[in-house]
Amino acid sequence: MLNLPAPQRLHGLVTATHTPFHPDGALNLDVVEKQAAFLQSKGVNLVFIGGSTGESHSLTLEERLLLAKCWMAVTKGSEMRVVVHVGANCVADAKTLAEQAEELGAAAIAALTPMYFKPKNVEMLVETMGQIAAAAPETPFYYYDIPSMTGVNLPVPEFLRQARERIPNLAGVKFTNPDLMAYQYCLRADGGAWDVPFGCDEHMLGALAMGAKGAVGSGFNFAAPIYSRLLAAFAQNDFAAARVEQFRGVQIISALASYGYMGAAKAVMSMLGVDVGPARLPNNTLTPAQKDKLHGELEAMGFFEWVK
Amino acid sequence: MLNLPAPQRLHGLVTATHTPFHPDGALNLDVVEKQAAFLQSKGVNLVFIGGSTGESHSLTLEERLLLAKCWMAVTKGSEMRVVVHVGANCVADAKTLAEQAEELGAAAIAALTPMYFKPKNVEMLVETMGQIAAAAPETPFYYYDIPSMTGVNLPVPEFLRQARERIPNLAGVKFTNPDLMAYQYCLRADGGAWDVPFGCDEHMLGALAMGAKGAVGSGFNFAAPIYSRLLAAFAQNDFAAARVEQFRGVQIISALASYGYMGAAKAVMSMLGVDVGPARLPNNTLTPAQKDKLHGELEAMGFFEWVK
Amino acid sequence: MLNLPAPQRLHGLVTATHTPFHPDGALNLDVVEKQAAFLQSKGVNLVFIGGSTGESHSLTLEERLLLAKCWMAVTKGSEMRVVVHVGANCVADAKTLAEQAEELGAAAIAALTPMYFKPKNVEMLVETMGQIAAAAPETPFYYYDIPSMTGVNLPVPEFLRQARERIPNLAGVKFTNPDLMAYQYCLRADGGAWDVPFGCDEHMLGALAMGAKGAVGSGFNFAAPIYSRLLAAFAQNDFAAARVEQFRGVQIISALASYGYMGAAKAVMSMLGVDVGPARLPNNTLTPAQKDKLHGELEAMGFFEWVK
Amino acid sequence: MLNLPAPQRLHGLVTATHTPFHPDGALNLDVVEKQAAFLQSKGVNLVFIGGSTGESHSLTLEERLLLAKCWMAVTKGSEMRVVVHVGANCVADAKTLAEQAEELGAAAIAALTPMYFKPKNVEMLVETMGQIAAAAPETPFYYYDIPSMTGVNLPVPEFLRQARERIPNLAGVKFTNPDLMAYQYCLRADGGAWDVPFGCDEHMLGALAMGAKGAVGSGFNFAAPIYSRLLAAFAQNDFAAARVEQFRGVQIISALASYGYMGAAKAVMSMLGVDVGPARLPNNTLTPAQKDKLHGELEAMGFFEWVK
Repeated sequence: MLNLPAPQRLHGLVTATHTPFHPDGALNLDVVEKQAAFLQSKGVNLVFIGGSTGESHSLTLEERLLLAKCWMAVTKGSEMRVVVHVGANCVADAKTLAEQAEELGAAAIAALTPMYFKPKNVEMLVETMGQIAAAAPETPFYYYDIPSMTGVNLPVPEFLRQARERIPNLAGVKFTNPDLMAYQYCLRADGGAWDVPFGCDEHMLGALAMGAKGAVGSGFNFAAPIYSRLLAAFAQNDFAAARVEQFRGVQIISALASYGYMGAAKAVMSMLGVDVGPARLPNNTLTPAQKDKLHGELEAMGFFEWVK
Repeated sequence: MLNLPAPQRLHGLVTATHTPFHPDGALNLDVVEKQAAFLQSKGVNLVFIGGSTGESHSLTLEERLLLAKCWMAVTKGSEMRVVVHVGANCVADAKTLAEQAEELGAAAIAALTPMYFKPKNVEMLVETMGQIAAAAPETPFYYYDIPSMTGVNLPVPEFLRQARERIPNLAGVKFTNPDLMAYQYCLRADGGAWDVPFGCDEHMLGALAMGAKGAVGSGFNFAAPIYSRLLAAFAQNDFAAARVEQFRGVQIISALASYGYMGAAKAVMSMLGVDVGPARLPNNTLTPAQKDKLHGELEAMGFFEWVK
Repeated sequence: MLNLPAPQRLHGLVTATHTPFHPDGALNLDVVEKQAAFLQSKGVNLVFIGGSTGESHSLTLEERLLLAKCWMAVTKGSEMRVVVHVGANCVADAKTLAEQAEELGAAAIAALTPMYFKPKNVEMLVETMGQIAAAAPETPFYYYDIPSMTGVNLPVPEFLRQARERIPNLAGVKFTNPDLMAYQYCLRADGGAWDVPFGCDEHMLGALAMGAKGAVGSGFNFAAPIYSRLLAAFAQNDFAAARVEQFRGVQIISALASYGYMGAAKAVMSMLGVDVGPARLPNNTLTPAQKDKLHGELEAMGFFEWVK
Repeated sequence: MLNLPAPQRLHGLVTATHTPFHPDGALNLDVVEKQAAFLQSKGVNLVFIGGSTGESHSLTLEERLLLAKCWMAVTKGSEMRVVVHVGANCVADAKTLAEQAEELGAAAIAALTPMYFKPKNVEMLVETMGQIAAAAPETPFYYYDIPSMTGVNLPVPEFLRQARERIPNLAGVKFTNPDLMAYQYCLRADGGAWDVPFGCDEHMLGALAMGAKGAVGSGFNFAAPIYSRLLAAFAQNDFAAARVEQFRGVQIISALASYGYMGAAKAVMSMLGVDVGPARLPNNTLTPAQKDKLHGELEAMGFFEWVK
């Protein structure tokens, strides 16, 4: 196990970036530079690439390798740190991605579990994550827990207990799980040794109260100013302000979800001048009419003011 | 809809009380006075009787009527306010209980949904709750949302929208649901008109951050001092202290759950001198050996000091 | 355990009857005689009363007692055998019902599991069923497995293994579960000692192939002729005919389900001249317009010819 | 839509083959010839390769391409027909596999749905399947429905209705779903135009009764004689014999499942002289001690006699 010093931890806002596509669905790496610049202009210096928001499961292995290479090149020399998501149903693919991430000097890697075949218990999960982590032995490794998507709902505190001795580069967990009871155990395990960024934007204020220091989310692509103000307000114990910002985040999520979250979130990016293109199947892409309607709803709620 | 003034709301700790049984499982109303006195000695002045913790679904209708009568008699003239849970699979039974509660002068009533047959949409839920609420028209009514037990996971904000006009005595929702996104909508709906006590003890600090003012829980039977300190620490923005108390609560819940929560919680009451007897089937009651073992675990963690 | 002789088993069609209500929802026992006569005119001589189709969870205990008394009186001296469903969330209520059923001379009793609190393992299920069965020690007892409604999905073959020694009057299981693998184990356990009527009308032909001898269903209220022809065709190895009848049953179920099954099924009864009234909340009752529309759909598919 | 003539349909037993690995987990294509010969010696002339049993989600794209090429080469000139599973979370990968399968002259292709991101409705499923099918326009295409693994439980009859006009080479559905009600609709849709092989070995006799003509399963790798006798007995209306064989299949499945099905099934292959190696993570591989124990259990039940 690693007990990362604070500057290396995933504190503050970590944006789970979209993977940009051309209108025909082909990978469009030219947009990455724009994405990075846009996020930096909003004060974000940590990105989580090729994750759920990055449609990793809809990318070929080759595309994932190209994407990681591109992000590392674009952010070279900048203050931006890149976490590469390497998880896959195929452990061999995950290992290939992990090896590349280490070669490229990624700040960290993370992996969700295979979910077509599901590890039947914590032991098998540790074994699987251990093989992936071992492919990037010098790079901090995060297990990415997201039971709403994977259907794998194994207890994370128990994962930490078992993985502690068996995964030397384990740094923590990307905890995309509303279970704030398990979250407390993770934050307190081994004297606070683990870095446990929280992954449900819409519950962030609750996690901060529990002790969260960082958050990985897709909402920060287009709403980082809102969540930055939320963090600042919380730091000052200004709950009235924090709740206003949290609720703004929540209203945006509700609006996007009604159109199909992935395609709607990508549409919002183009409204903000960063055209990351359509979503890939089986996610739907908004029609022009839907995009117009969504734009109207966002404008009516004040979104474009909130994220300036 | 009612927009209750603050003193009538379910603010602070509302204890969901156990129903006391004799060793043979028969109702043992003699214990109610002791329960009430014990809670008051811990600073609790609000009780929620005959709910999930009260094993309502394992009681006969007659027993539920006797239980309510007893609690109202015992608390008469005291500062203690009694909320009577009246929900049942059988709407006619729920109405009978509601009528009695109003006659007895209960502070409020609450009802969970029928869950063998499940309302197929929010309309049917509103229709069902409306019939129950109408049987106690002068008494504030709370919908009791607890999807983990009922399997009914209809959106509560939408329930409030539809019920607003149709249930004149609707005061709010007992929100036993970890969905802090929906919770925000409920707290903010209609300008904050609704009273929405939170029902998951183990997530309480998260809910407070979101704006919760009250909590209904079973943990307050035996751990009210912990949660009182949590509330006080939160009110003073002392998160270090608040988190310590929250985590104490969580450790207790974990310990009890490993034995079967209901029976274990009732065993703890007897350890504290309030013998509420066994649990009823299908919940298990702890064997003497299990009870000893649990006692040891609680002692080792510091429980008996925490709740002094 | 009981190893019932064939004539006492639940072979052939066992109709799970509706509970009749007045238009205002009050119990309407006058209809029971008509129900019994109608079923007998269709060749049905076995009824399962106060079960899921009978809206048992929406009835008061008193109503259930009255219902059983009425059915026993109505069928006295006839060839009709009555199985009384006694299951309830409250075990005490279930025992009261079981005692009455034995006094009344019911052919058998059956009980589904408490499902608000769920037995946490097979042991607790056996313990719970054992207490209910013991209240009617001279009456054959059936465990009623219906995981789609109860959310309790414990393995039935294991239930039989554990209950064998502990429930002397256990006769079998009403198996309302599409798991034909578990079904085979039940049919073969203990040399075929158990009576295991199948409870999913829409899969009946599959269960017959596996060895089912009887079926308990709600569809036989209004479509017994279809299922009788299905049984006859199967007995003659005429699969072409059997499939036609099975598919007729399936088409009817689909039509009813689109309106809300319970209310729609009761509406169909009134179309056939047996007015069992509305459904109780939280189930919906069809509006007159819906009823007309459903009538048209049923007519178009040939329903009224099929069930003549 | 295609309305395949009977000889081109997936009638009889279609074996979902294992993917062979070396002890270190590397692809071991040398075993394919042995697999094919073994199956042919058992009378099986249809294989479904690279499916769930083939651990497709644990293979790299390159390995899947090599596997298909190998099977086509090995079976060239024989009577064996090969169905290539091409489904993947990444639609681009699925299209690459589909293109190759068509070039290689596969008898048919099949695809399960992406399941990390789930199509939110039947329209999106049809759109996704349509893109994959279009990559092999001259090859019959089967949608592979397996909700227990994918978590996608969209109604298959509705899929057929919508896909009819939009997927010209759609031939049917590999129906790995215990829902025999939906199955009837599929068999009868469009006058029986669709080929709908059934995919749950343990329910096969039920599906045959409903009208199934073919079955795709993993059990046929090691127990084809059992299922062949089942088919023969059913064809002769000898239900006593058919049930015996079905129950043999069920007992084997129960035994394997208790060790982790995939690894246990592969262990059984080596017991039969076809060493397909270990399972890949996250599936577990049996330890030598587990393998011995399983061998003993199988011997005790008569397995090795049954499959001679």
